[in-house]
Order: sequence, then C-alpha cells, then structure tokens
Amino acid sequence: MCPHALIPYKPTNPKTRLSCILSQEEREAFARAMLVDVIDAVKDANCSPVIVGTELFDSEDVQVTIADADLNGALNSLVQQSTGDPLLIIMADLPLATGPSIRRVVTTEMAMAIVPGRGGGTNVIFLKDPARFHFDYYGTSFLKHSKIAEEAGLSCEVIDSFRLHTDIDEKEDLVELLIHGTGKSRKYLEDLGFELAVERGRVGVTGRKKAE
Amino acid sequence: MCPHALIPYKPTNPKTRLSCILSQEEREAFARAMLVDVIDAVKDANCSPVIVGTELFDSEDVQVTIADADLNGALNSLVQQSTGDPLLIIMADLPLATGPSIRRVVTTEMAMAIVPGRGGGTNVIFLKDPARFHFDYYGTSFLKHSKIAEEAGLSCEVIDSFRLHTDIDEKEDLVELLIHGTGKSRKYLEDLGFELAVERGRVGVTGRKKAE
Repeated sequence: MCPHALIPYKPTNPKTRLSCILSQEEREAFARAMLVDVIDAVKDANCSPVIVGTELFDSEDVQVTIADADLNGALNSLVQQSTGDPLLIIMADLPLATGPSIRRVVTTEMAMAIVPGRGGGTNVIFLKDPARFHFDYYGTSFLKHSKIAEEAGLSCEVIDSFRLHTDIDEKEDLVELLIHGTGKSRKYLEDLGFELAVERGRVGVTGRKKAE
Repeated sequence: MCPHALIPYKPTNPKTRLSCILSQEEREAFARAMLVDVIDAVKDANCSPVIVGTELFDSEDVQVTIADADLNGALNSLVQQSTGDPLLIIMADLPLATGPSIRRVVTTEMAMAIVPGRGGGTNVIFLKDPARFHFDYYGTSFLKHSKIAEEAGLSCEVIDSFRLHTDIDEKEDLVELLIHGTGKSRKYLEDLGFELAVERGRVGVTGRKKAE
C-alpha cells in the first residue's frame, strides 16, 4: 500500500503567530524546513506526498496541486475527484512526524484514523474510502471530524501520538522541536541561534544570538 | 506481570499555576480527581498503584508512602530499597492516561521506557531493573533521564503518546482535558461550569458560570 499523502501548505507569510521572534522571510524558510521534515517522514512511511499549495512555488521533486478554494473547499473538491484509493491528509507544521508514527496511522484496522492536534484541531486524517467523508477544519475540528465519521458510519481510531499531536504555532512550541526534532527545521532554528533555556523551573527558548 | 506504579502526589496547595481560575480548595479537589483518573488507568493496565505523598491524607484503598525528601530524594531512596522488580513512576497530573497507553509503556522490549512531558519534562518512566537508574526530575528532565539511561547502558524506548505527554499545569491545558478526558477530573471541571470556547479561530476554555 502506498497511499497519497496530501500536505496543505501556504508558502507566503505563514506562521504569523511566530512574528514576535521571526521575520516574514525567516517564517517562510522555517515553514519550508518543516514541510521538508514532513515530506521525509511521509516518504519513510511509504506514502506519496502531494503538496496542496495556495500558490505556485518551487517544489523540487514533489507533486504540487494548486487549490484556489479555502482548505475545506480544496480538500473536499480533491476527495470528490479521487479514485477511491486510501488517502492521508497531514499538516505541514508537524516537524516531529516520523515514519513509524505515520505508519501507525495508515495501518489502522478501522475505516479511518485521526490524530488530534493541540487545542482540538486535526493534524492527520487517514481515510480508506475518502468519498464517504468530508472535511471541516478550523476550531475544534477534531470533535467535528469525529462526529462526521460517526454520522457516516465510519469506524474511527484516534491515534495516540505526541509526535503528530505537536503542531508548531507559537514560540513555546519551539521547545518541543528543540528537544525532539531531528530534521531540517530544528537545524534551521539552531542555526538562527535559538536554544533551550531553563528559568525558574520552566523550560523555554532563548532568542537568537546577536548578529556579529 | 503486575509492577508497582509509584504516583508522586502533593495534596496541599497543588497546581498553583491554575490559581488564576481555581481557589486553593478547588485546586486540591481537582488534583485529587486527576489522581483518581491516573489510579484508574494504572489499575486498568494491571499495575499496583502506590501514592508517594508529601504528607498523610485519606487514600481509601490505595497504599500511601510518605516521603520526607524532595521528589528525587524520595524516589532514589525508594529505588534503593526496591526488591529488583520492575517499577513504573507516573505523575498524578495526567488525567488523559488510559490503560492502553500505560500498557504501551510497561510492555516495552527495552530495559526501560520514558514518556516525555510538555516542555522537556518526564511524565512516565518504566524500569525493568530500577537499581541501575537514578532520578533527576525538574527542568529538561527528559534529556537528563535519557542521558542517565545511556550512561548506565540501559536501552530506552521513548513512548510516543499524547495522552501521557499532556500534563495539566495551566489554564490552556484544560482544553485538552475537556476534549479528550473521560474521567472524574473532566467532570469536576464541567461541574464548575468550564466549557470549550472558540474565539477568533483559537480554542480556549470559558470561565465558570456565575454562582446563582
């Protein structure tokens, strides 16, 4: 089995909640590094990555589909065009993803699997029969997707993975990447000078080193 | 196999980072409800819970050991007295813990297993031969414990579980409990009037209802 893995991706001005510590150019490079980490993990799990981009960009050897609708519209439209083969949808801001963690998702014995994100989002969905499902991202989408599965009569496994649960949105999230990351996005942060700092018992990140 | 599961627990004035939304009495009741959820999960995983308390308190049917040292001193002392049987150490603020998630830890094929907490902490440790290990909690204890394992020549599996990764310390963490919890601590929060709220795309909790 080698399912397609759709990876929604916004190349321009992404991750605005990191604006306090990264410039737009840096956020774009960092988002791209996280995308590469996700693509590497997807390939390691024997899935075929397809970037669902909001605009054209240089993607090297990975197929890109340009979507002119919002995320839900784009994915629901893609699913309607699907051939009925199993489909994985994985977010681009999961740089702790690994081949083994994704394999746990795509080897589910149920009709589908979900990995919840922090704050009730949906980080990964795997569908054996995509046409029977529809997407409703944003807000507490994990609860919405669970309900959609139930109403469609689809058995659904919730995959218990912190690697796929940890989406990188805010400064505090960088701690997880600096501790557990092994790929390009961790290296990108370290090259900028970010490192772990323990203050009054809590762990955070220090800002980058001053330019010399 | 039925290993003892040590659960460090502070009954008086716990969870001070929740002081912004819960009184001391409420924090004590909430911490107790989370402890009960952890005990239930530990029992469901066929482990024998032993509370490691900082003081005497009413514990119903669960054994309590009173430790007069700090957490590291208490656990290191207990390990030195141990009979050499496998040992689980699990924190009391993991109300998303389930029998299956704990079973993944205690069935490791390696010499030990760790579940990292958020921010580099250590939420769960399982040791097949406790005398070969020593504890160094606080700060980035996950990294410290990984190094201690390596230096002791102990193979160590990192268990990829968001249920055991999610410790409840701050208001934002309550979102996870209201979404994924199924036990007494979720019910305690709901009885106080806490519920999920979606504002500008982010999910949080609303404060309790006003007293009538």
